[in-house]
Amino acid sequence: MKHALEFYFDVGSPAAYLAWTQVPRIARETGTEVEYRPFLLGGVFQATGNRSPMEVPAKGQYMVDDLQRFARRYGVPFAHSPHFPINTLALMRMALGLQLRDPHRMVPFVDAVYRAIWVDGRNMNDPGTVAAALQAADFDPEKLLALASDPAVKDDLKAATQEAVQRGVFGAPTFFVGQEMFWGQDRLDFVKEALS
Amino acid sequence: MKHALEFYFDVGSPAAYLAWTQVPRIARETGTEVEYRPFLLGGVFQATGNRSPMEVPAKGQYMVDDLQRFARRYGVPFAHSPHFPINTLALMRMALGLQLRDPHRMVPFVDAVYRAIWVDGRNMNDPGTVAAALQAADFDPEKLLALASDPAVKDDLKAATQEAVQRGVFGAPTFFVGQEMFWGQDRLDFVKEALS
Repeated sequence: MKHALEFYFDVGSPAAYLAWTQVPRIARETGTEVEYRPFLLGGVFQATGNRSPMEVPAKGQYMVDDLQRFARRYGVPFAHSPHFPINTLALMRMALGLQLRDPHRMVPFVDAVYRAIWVDGRNMNDPGTVAAALQAADFDPEKLLALASDPAVKDDLKAATQEAVQRGVFGAPTFFVGQEMFWGQDRLDFVKEALS
Repeated sequence: MKHALEFYFDVGSPAAYLAWTQVPRIARETGTEVEYRPFLLGGVFQATGNRSPMEVPAKGQYMVDDLQRFARRYGVPFAHSPHFPINTLALMRMALGLQLRDPHRMVPFVDAVYRAIWVDGRNMNDPGTVAAALQAADFDPEKLLALASDPAVKDDLKAATQEAVQRGVFGAPTFFVGQEMFWGQDRLDFVKEALS
């Protein structure tokens, strides 16, 4: 039996954005189904004691160069967000809410949010900017805000994040191929090997 | 003018060990000279606020799997040290002292130390174990201890570590190709590209 590719992502992670641009290609090349796993990276950091590399100034400066090198290799647009870090709680609730209630709209939603943050440099900490970006991508911001305020969706995101921690996730992006875990957009070659 | 490959390493880093096994091949394949840069990783962590990934339990557990995957890919032996973390102050003073005063012996010394720590699982925190490992590799432990106690060598290691921090180094291994910095044994493909 062939394993699916489980892909844990948060829209606030630039490395998860780069992975997001590559996962469909890897799935196609290996004939694999992708199981998207929205979770809250901030919750995982809190539970595991891990932190963003951006919190160490010398490392943060280097990471931006490193992400740019991979973006060039992948041939995708990338600009480090001037508004980093982004509070992604409402956005990830929307992503998970869509996945549960209107599954075909989840990928287009995340596409729009990743582009707004990691290509166009929009300030997605600002509710008006979020509403404008969503409207431009043919979403109804009111409906998505209602989804993000729904107690059941809130609980689901909490549960998804706790489950990630229980499986050993400590950062984003994280991939599972069966029981094998891979962390980082820079491990997609190993992910592809595991799927082949 | 062709750049050399500058290679910052500390014997206490398993990732630097893996890089150590690959750097001669990359140098050969690209016709590049290697400039070995011994430094003290602990000093860099202190100066930059960075820390070992092993300090986050979930990350540490994963990192061991990750290093094993690369060791398999490279076809080199690797066993995570049961004595981690290793206090490498004396060992790195010896490495730098040899580089300055008996340069042809530096690489054989580091080879022996890497093998003791990251292949044979020896406890290099223990002076008797260090002496035995060095003797087995045809070094005179007394002479190396004298080198590690030499105030000039101590100052040189401090200066080398400070210089690394000033250049933006925050971890090990770190590479420079001209002004371009690369961090991690998992960036050797980018290093090779930069040298080609």
